[in-house]
Amino acid sequence: MPRIAFEQVEHRLAEVLRSLGFSEERAQLSARLFAETTCDGVYSHGVNRFARLVATVRNGSVDPTAEPRVVTQFGAMERWDGQRGPGNLNAQAAMARAIALSSEHGIGCVAMANTNHWMRGGTYGWQAADAGVIGICWTNTMPNVPPWGGAEPAIGNNPLVIAVPRANGHVVLDMAMSQFSYGALESYRRRGEQLPVEGGFDAEGKLTRDPEAIEKSQRLLPIGFWKGSGLAVMLDLIAAMTSLGNATHQIENDSLRETALSQVFIAIDPKNLGDTARIEQIADEVVDSLHRSRPAVETKAVRYPGENTLRLREENLRLGLPIDEGIWKEILKM
Amino acid sequence: MPRIAFEQVEHRLAEVLRSLGFSEERAQLSARLFAETTCDGVYSHGVNRFARLVATVRNGSVDPTAEPRVVTQFGAMERWDGQRGPGNLNAQAAMARAIALSSEHGIGCVAMANTNHWMRGGTYGWQAADAGVIGICWTNTMPNVPPWGGAEPAIGNNPLVIAVPRANGHVVLDMAMSQFSYGALESYRRRGEQLPVEGGFDAEGKLTRDPEAIEKSQRLLPIGFWKGSGLAVMLDLIAAMTSLGNATHQIENDSLRETALSQVFIAIDPKNLGDTARIEQIADEVVDSLHRSRPAVETKAVRYPGENTLRLREENLRLGLPIDEGIWKEILKM
Repeated sequence: MPRIAFEQVEHRLAEVLRSLGFSEERAQLSARLFAETTCDGVYSHGVNRFARLVATVRNGSVDPTAEPRVVTQFGAMERWDGQRGPGNLNAQAAMARAIALSSEHGIGCVAMANTNHWMRGGTYGWQAADAGVIGICWTNTMPNVPPWGGAEPAIGNNPLVIAVPRANGHVVLDMAMSQFSYGALESYRRRGEQLPVEGGFDAEGKLTRDPEAIEKSQRLLPIGFWKGSGLAVMLDLIAAMTSLGNATHQIENDSLRETALSQVFIAIDPKNLGDTARIEQIADEVVDSLHRSRPAVETKAVRYPGENTLRLREENLRLGLPIDEGIWKEILKM
Repeated sequence: MPRIAFEQVEHRLAEVLRSLGFSEERAQLSARLFAETTCDGVYSHGVNRFARLVATVRNGSVDPTAEPRVVTQFGAMERWDGQRGPGNLNAQAAMARAIALSSEHGIGCVAMANTNHWMRGGTYGWQAADAGVIGICWTNTMPNVPPWGGAEPAIGNNPLVIAVPRANGHVVLDMAMSQFSYGALESYRRRGEQLPVEGGFDAEGKLTRDPEAIEKSQRLLPIGFWKGSGLAVMLDLIAAMTSLGNATHQIENDSLRETALSQVFIAIDPKNLGDTARIEQIADEVVDSLHRSRPAVETKAVRYPGENTLRLREENLRLGLPIDEGIWKEILKM
């Protein structure tokens, strides 16, 4: 796969975004977030997904000039309106505000209605951890997973992100409530690979590892069967009830028309309670305990969530971002 | 199975607790929480687990007279020391304080170190929802699940509880990070049943539905394979870092010696941001959308988390609590 320098990718994406009506500053930030996502190895949600953002700006689902605004405030909590602006810029602003609230109140929460797909959720986890605080955020989505006991999509895969700061590498979990996200299914299909475990049902209702069969049936398997299904329902309820935005059942099931999502951003800054040095030690000790634990395959040490990211980031910065030739050509023609 | 009146169960458990050194008031509250858990149909964590509490008081793991205390406060957040008191009483007090903080700040958080097994986590979710607020809480545990890629227990099954208030029945999720909790495995084994899906590995490292084989191998399967494993790590990190308490790797892997756990209690009161009527509608609409969705089996409507609880509660209050004869005899002899 061709490799293209980070700055070149960032520069080209920003050019395209400006041509779509993004301001200079916002085009640069959005382009950086896309390039960073690919740089961090989350290929399904980075440059590979840029064409979809462009399409949703062109069809009016995303308003490139809209900025999120505070609707109501109470103590450590705020309700925001995303005004259907670009999802990644909205989410970045909301997490920045949650971080600020956490430094004032210990914990802070921004609930945002009316926003758009945030691309890689992990971005806002890294953002919180880079600011030295714990970040918890999630989004609802269009109905793209059948609930447990259901035959058709009625809940979202509602990605949940949890991040913990650590001097030697943040611990960041970014997971959808389906065993695989549609982005992940797409990546497996593009690489011509089967899934490592069963990820959903085929058209006949049989569990399968074939990514394409699941993309077609739209019957993704929730993680842990009934458990992930229940967790998706709870995340949707909280997002909609705190933001007064849409719940999954109100969101159009079409990736180019999926808009007006609801999201929650929570930041926790335990340093305000004292003993910063001990807090940092605890994170290292937990990571060490995982590394020390006996692996199932002798040569493969147990890893912590996000452990691969820093290695991939360094490699991709050094060698250039690996980008599918067809996708890059498409971006050059935009 | 014999059925025994709620009040009779509550009365007897309180008697036993007083004999162990619990104050009158605390014996009554703890006994009520045990009886309510069985009444709500969570048999694995109610009266069936009472003998284990008694054993941990007798062996000194649980101090029946210890009360939790605030260590530090900052805005909407508090760090508590559970002082190795009874886990259910500690958790009830911590969630009550988180609820109070949420009415003052919109969101509130209590992080508690040095506490004990909270029995049914759902109890504190129902507590928040009964108070009209959203509750999120979790606990770490002894290392009882192998991390993804690991061969031996090194992470906890760290139950997570999320509750949303609803006039027509709260929505309450109470789930461990393993596909089945040890309590659930025990219930299946006692009933002589196989698990409905694979729940762990047997001694030979093969996936199995046999609850006893998994209890013996101690190789529970995390929900969603690597995802639930990652989520368990994050919950442990946050609990230990915010409370300055133990992380899972520091907790003794023995159900009678498992003590000094770390827990987090978060309450969110979106009513403070206005529009209470709309918030309540949203909860009903989400529940309705699940009930309207097409079920996999025509006669079995999709259910929301906790949907069965109110029916079981009513039935068990009316008919008496179903309690295994041997277990009840044991309690009468205590």
